[in-house]
Amino acid sequence: MNHQNFMTRALELASLAIGSVSPNPAVGAVLVKNGRIIGEGCHRGPGSLHAEIDAIENASESVSGATLFCTLEPCCTVYPGKRQPPCTDRIIAEKIREVVIAANDPNPHVNGMGVARLKSRGITVREGLLKDEAEKLNEVFNVNQKEQRAFVHLKIAQTLDGRIATSGGDSKWITDEDARRDVHRYRSLYDSVLVGAGTVRADNPKLNSRLIDMGKNPIRIVLSRSLDFPQEREIFSDDDRTRTIVVTSPDSRKKKKLYFTEKGIEVLEFTDLPHLLQRLYRKGICSVFVEGGKAVYTSFLQQQAYDRLSIYTAPLICGTGIDAVGNLQTGLMNQSLRFGKTEFEMINNQTVFHGWRF
Amino acid sequence: MNHQNFMTRALELASLAIGSVSPNPAVGAVLVKNGRIIGEGCHRGPGSLHAEIDAIENASESVSGATLFCTLEPCCTVYPGKRQPPCTDRIIAEKIREVVIAANDPNPHVNGMGVARLKSRGITVREGLLKDEAEKLNEVFNVNQKEQRAFVHLKIAQTLDGRIATSGGDSKWITDEDARRDVHRYRSLYDSVLVGAGTVRADNPKLNSRLIDMGKNPIRIVLSRSLDFPQEREIFSDDDRTRTIVVTSPDSRKKKKLYFTEKGIEVLEFTDLPHLLQRLYRKGICSVFVEGGKAVYTSFLQQQAYDRLSIYTAPLICGTGIDAVGNLQTGLMNQSLRFGKTEFEMINNQTVFHGWRF
Repeated sequence: MNHQNFMTRALELASLAIGSVSPNPAVGAVLVKNGRIIGEGCHRGPGSLHAEIDAIENASESVSGATLFCTLEPCCTVYPGKRQPPCTDRIIAEKIREVVIAANDPNPHVNGMGVARLKSRGITVREGLLKDEAEKLNEVFNVNQKEQRAFVHLKIAQTLDGRIATSGGDSKWITDEDARRDVHRYRSLYDSVLVGAGTVRADNPKLNSRLIDMGKNPIRIVLSRSLDFPQEREIFSDDDRTRTIVVTSPDSRKKKKLYFTEKGIEVLEFTDLPHLLQRLYRKGICSVFVEGGKAVYTSFLQQQAYDRLSIYTAPLICGTGIDAVGNLQTGLMNQSLRFGKTEFEMINNQTVFHGWRF
Repeated sequence: MNHQNFMTRALELASLAIGSVSPNPAVGAVLVKNGRIIGEGCHRGPGSLHAEIDAIENASESVSGATLFCTLEPCCTVYPGKRQPPCTDRIIAEKIREVVIAANDPNPHVNGMGVARLKSRGITVREGLLKDEAEKLNEVFNVNQKEQRAFVHLKIAQTLDGRIATSGGDSKWITDEDARRDVHRYRSLYDSVLVGAGTVRADNPKLNSRLIDMGKNPIRIVLSRSLDFPQEREIFSDDDRTRTIVVTSPDSRKKKKLYFTEKGIEVLEFTDLPHLLQRLYRKGICSVFVEGGKAVYTSFLQQQAYDRLSIYTAPLICGTGIDAVGNLQTGLMNQSLRFGKTEFEMINNQTVFHGWRF
């Protein structure tokens, strides 16, 4: 086992709790002595031990002189709201000799100070091993910390020719069950799912994670400027309705808002999407998985209010229908929206494109 | 080396001449004795030796008692227009012991009769080894023989959201040079390239194989019902203009047809696309690579006048623009056009979808 193998194991440990750590980052840690692992740990969610401490507690022998591999820079201070003691103090007290870190912690209470504190006490610190993998694991946390707003992942399911529904609005189904299960997996990882009023009207969706075992159901957010809905949509009336939030403009009619608040459904006002993302983050909603429809996708793309876009494409040609994306005022082809990083995967005979904003 | 390795080699030999054998099939042959190859051959084009004979002529020792691997069933008759003698006669005369065949020859002058003739003379015949690969290699020839019409390969280059141009008509470029080189490679393999009048008007394309070395330039076919073109488009005036064909409806205006015929450009009339494909095949044009635009793609898809569709998708979002495919009267999503077989490949960060008609 070399350094990279140990960090890969730490990343595996980190990913075990992803989906339940929000608003915290997912972190894994591995303690190595004489070339073998003597302790493993991960952070399991708000209020639980940090991964570094978890690994120390789990160690099968003395950790003095050991090397600690951790996916995120150890914390070094206490501040209001933080329930766990600084990891750096424990690392120093346990006489750990060397710390290998994948990614730095952008949290302004850490942000390089964890590394500095360890170095000041003579501990060897190596940074950046499998940094890209570690940063991808905490893409939500990193955006939260740096931009103080919710992370946005847009998801589109379309035909080869870019249609999300027929002209008549039919969209069941474009992708197969394995692809839809993958979508439900994402729902379970994020704090919330957002759709437009049109989608609620047309599809009456449940927006839960029912296709996967033990999947956490996200908060459901409905974006509607008009608040015109037919009565009795699933997400306004099912047992989980208090976990539905309606977001609308400040000038939508008071009486319509009352209809929702009387049912225990929160109504949130926003001016533009960046403002909405700040409001959601301040409410503790760190991530938003956006599932359409066309008007919603177009607004998020137009306002550059997204971090990641995933497109599930099924091998079908629909012809004229409802497009995934509306007018982005693209004059010349080379002014089209591009991505900073792209990835592709296959689910059966469907492609999945993942693009990250520049 | 086992049987599969020998047939793989025969397929490699067959593919060497692809692009120059039309209207004949691409064929490769390998002679094996005592577990090693003693002769290799391929068909190089109309009038040249058949692959089986080529392998026999090239053999380094007596072929008596050898096993012959050939990618296509050997021919067994002479008929008007055929310049080479029957391969079965030579195989029998040379006392070849066994013949392994990948695919049967759908040519009505062969079509199982080659196999029957060999068997009648006591030669062991095995059929179907790497049949799918062999049939794919000759997909043009197979359609020609079975349906007596030209093979059609539709090619679309689009953004992720299914646009082939901006609203203003700009499309330079959607895909990168490696993807465009791949398109030019296809052009060099097919007998002709077809575009609609709109594409000629908007893009003034050359439609040659300039991005690849030694690429054969295809015949250029322009589909236009109205024959309304601006003067001086490349393909009507360059040195190759006599290799441009204009196809139009019988009721387009005589004076407009005259404009082309006076320049030495052939004008061909057709009623519907299946009729056009028959006419082209009778003229010796065995394959058509269709490169747009939207109206042309939509017509070929509507009339089921295609065999294969390839979509090059670049990781761009254009938003509202010119769609690849127009109205196919798809009422419900599950009535969308599907494919019998699909394949995917990547060219840099672009996906290429290949779908074959059911």
